[in-house]
Amino acid sequence: MSIQTLSMSEVLAMYALSIRLDRVSSLVSKNAKKHFLDTIACILGGFSSESTRAVSNYMSNRQYTSESSVLMPSMIKTDAEFAAFINGVSAHALDYDDVSTAMIGHPSAVVVPTALALGEALGSSGEEVLTAYIAGVEVCALLGLSLNPRDAVNGWHSTSTIGIFGASVAAARLIGLSLNQTVDALGIAGSEASGLRANTGTMVKSIHVGRAAQKGIFCAKLAECNIHASKLIFEAPFGIGCAMSNGFCEKALIDAIETGRSEFTSGTLVSKQWPVCYAAYNAVEAAITISEKNSIKWECIDHVLCRVSQSTRDMLPYDIPSEPLQGKFSLPYCIAAALRWQNISIEDFSDDRFSSLIGFLPRIKVETDKSLMNSAYLDGRDTTELLIVMKNRDKYFERVDSPRLSSNLLERNKIASCTGVDFSSQSLFSLENAVYNIENALSLSELLNSIMACFENIHYQEANL
Amino acid sequence: MSIQTLSMSEVLAMYALSIRLDRVSSLVSKNAKKHFLDTIACILGGFSSESTRAVSNYMSNRQYTSESSVLMPSMIKTDAEFAAFINGVSAHALDYDDVSTAMIGHPSAVVVPTALALGEALGSSGEEVLTAYIAGVEVCALLGLSLNPRDAVNGWHSTSTIGIFGASVAAARLIGLSLNQTVDALGIAGSEASGLRANTGTMVKSIHVGRAAQKGIFCAKLAECNIHASKLIFEAPFGIGCAMSNGFCEKALIDAIETGRSEFTSGTLVSKQWPVCYAAYNAVEAAITISEKNSIKWECIDHVLCRVSQSTRDMLPYDIPSEPLQGKFSLPYCIAAALRWQNISIEDFSDDRFSSLIGFLPRIKVETDKSLMNSAYLDGRDTTELLIVMKNRDKYFERVDSPRLSSNLLERNKIASCTGVDFSSQSLFSLENAVYNIENALSLSELLNSIMACFENIHYQEANL
Repeated sequence: MSIQTLSMSEVLAMYALSIRLDRVSSLVSKNAKKHFLDTIACILGGFSSESTRAVSNYMSNRQYTSESSVLMPSMIKTDAEFAAFINGVSAHALDYDDVSTAMIGHPSAVVVPTALALGEALGSSGEEVLTAYIAGVEVCALLGLSLNPRDAVNGWHSTSTIGIFGASVAAARLIGLSLNQTVDALGIAGSEASGLRANTGTMVKSIHVGRAAQKGIFCAKLAECNIHASKLIFEAPFGIGCAMSNGFCEKALIDAIETGRSEFTSGTLVSKQWPVCYAAYNAVEAAITISEKNSIKWECIDHVLCRVSQSTRDMLPYDIPSEPLQGKFSLPYCIAAALRWQNISIEDFSDDRFSSLIGFLPRIKVETDKSLMNSAYLDGRDTTELLIVMKNRDKYFERVDSPRLSSNLLERNKIASCTGVDFSSQSLFSLENAVYNIENALSLSELLNSIMACFENIHYQEANL
Repeated sequence: MSIQTLSMSEVLAMYALSIRLDRVSSLVSKNAKKHFLDTIACILGGFSSESTRAVSNYMSNRQYTSESSVLMPSMIKTDAEFAAFINGVSAHALDYDDVSTAMIGHPSAVVVPTALALGEALGSSGEEVLTAYIAGVEVCALLGLSLNPRDAVNGWHSTSTIGIFGASVAAARLIGLSLNQTVDALGIAGSEASGLRANTGTMVKSIHVGRAAQKGIFCAKLAECNIHASKLIFEAPFGIGCAMSNGFCEKALIDAIETGRSEFTSGTLVSKQWPVCYAAYNAVEAAITISEKNSIKWECIDHVLCRVSQSTRDMLPYDIPSEPLQGKFSLPYCIAAALRWQNISIEDFSDDRFSSLIGFLPRIKVETDKSLMNSAYLDGRDTTELLIVMKNRDKYFERVDSPRLSSNLLERNKIASCTGVDFSSQSLFSLENAVYNIENALSLSELLNSIMACFENIHYQEANL
């Protein structure tokens, strides 16, 4: 059967079901584990967020099947869909999870919670879980290439509107759906895809992620129960391409598959080094560079001018954030934090630090300039220019076209800061070890135990304070 | 506070929270109960559908809080969200539930399951449940006026994309959310709104309805748990108006509220008399009229030409349906059934009748004509022309601009045929009585008992076969 005679759902489903861990390159496998670990770190960093706490309250006092762990210190079990929901909210709560410029969104925060929760419920092997995760992320990237930038430009938060398809194929893999059932799962997912950028800077943004993770399992399970859906959900009139984008670019998807593209080796999947919107990265880097190069003193800054493209501006709408969460989507806030501490960490969104920065923000002006938009619209790589004017009239200027990637050392620091566990602790090594050897694990129990050990360590540290 | 300074969510929430049963006109209240009953009839008719059975399988072997009745013969209880889901699927499974030409969708099939399931779980009074239902339907209509026809033209199934907001305010009413919480519920619902017309003619179309009913409760409960969302979800850049329509028409919404419009007295909410897509109604009426006027014999028909607008055509994409469910969205199938039986009933979508009609369908040709589109795009009132040519070359022509409304007698017949209960049976009278006196009920128990009695009657009849 030629690829040209298949529907896009059939192409995607065949592709996703064909991925085998022993056939992907060792670099794909290695990078996949790196991003899997990064996502677990984000969950461990996000479990105490306001969003996760609120969602946990919603879940309390209700009965569920006890099959999948909620990744919180209590490690209570609930059913796979709800566990994926809560863990997905945690994964994105800090906006610290990885970002794909192909998808224009955050694939791992959606797919890892799906794979973990369903893999635990089904007793899947580590290899099955890792393969499901890889398939899910690849599908997110392929759909991003076919639907974006227009999906995002139209107002959709691609992390969930595209992420749900990644979660659905990951769930399809773990359940062992047939090709036709996987096509049905994608067709059902088309009618479940949702999430608006208008909720950027609210608690709902991380709920998008949890819901996409949860709904992926839901869609696969409905398909397993013989719910049939359109096989043309992407390209049909009144399908995803028509409703969410300006059509569906079949060529982009087929070309990527035929050339053997992998999201894990294309340089488009980025582990974040700061817990802020990726669109602010160039500005943060410019601020840190100026600050370090010139050893400028925070209190000697008179004012700041930041120039960005309109698309970058649109992703960072809060000039004066009214709460710390909005600060992650505020150019002035991110720039101020970077100038003040030559870094941006989780703690910079505490109420105390928020109060200490907020008075400075009116000194930072943001302007848009069309010439700063690079070809890849909305992917966070638009150029940013930063001009800092000191009280003594000294001026410093920096232009950043693309954020540098974080080193391995930064990654370990990130995991340590997310988990609140000492850099050299045994529980951190156990967690890394469990993920880096996941393909040999008969089940997820070792990985889940290592996560629990991290929580116990956090508890222990808190008790010692 | 002037209405002009409020966000659309605030306007809608204030409006929805202000509705009181003792302040709406007696006609609103009477019609609301009529549509409430009609929806229960559809649930009773739809519970044995393939979609509901599949969804029930998905739910089986899982644990849930036991608080709300699944309206099936077993009357098992599950949690309110899942009960609303299953009952919503049943309500729309036959495509027999009421339709709003203001919403361009099916409001009651979404809102009644939400109100019933949550009302039972919370022990709400009949008055509270009826008021919540009225508020939900009014909100659906207001949003339809503000977002359609473009929401539907863009590919969205407004029944769910708009219905979820109706379900959310109904749930907000029953829970007793504050104004701010109701605004949050609407903001969360914006990020949960989904459902594609590409799934028309598949089992997923009725799943849209169940999910909107379920998600309405979910959104209200999250808001109750202090999840905060955008207050500008309808009119913000990257909000519902931008993402799903061509903006949000604030004037339509405010004008309707300020003039005291009610969906229940505007002639736009129609109880369906045939279980097929409303866009096929003019064609069905033309076929029945010709057939009855001229006593034409089915076997003497040579061929048929049906002319409709493009929008009507788009809603009925299946010229040769491959299964009975697609027949509900097929002009040839609906016309053939109407010509054959001078009516369309639930039984016309059995496998037997499907087989008996399918050979005739190639004799029916469908053409589109721009001049047949009335001003109110996509609302089912576009003109249809039907030409029937007999084997002896006699010709019959009928043109229908707007479907006639069903009489009360037809309504009772519909309820009887949906419930499978004899027209004069005690259980049917009990059901009618429970709904028509719902505002005096301290709880939903009498209504639920009368529904159970209908199921017992069905069982009894089946046992006697």
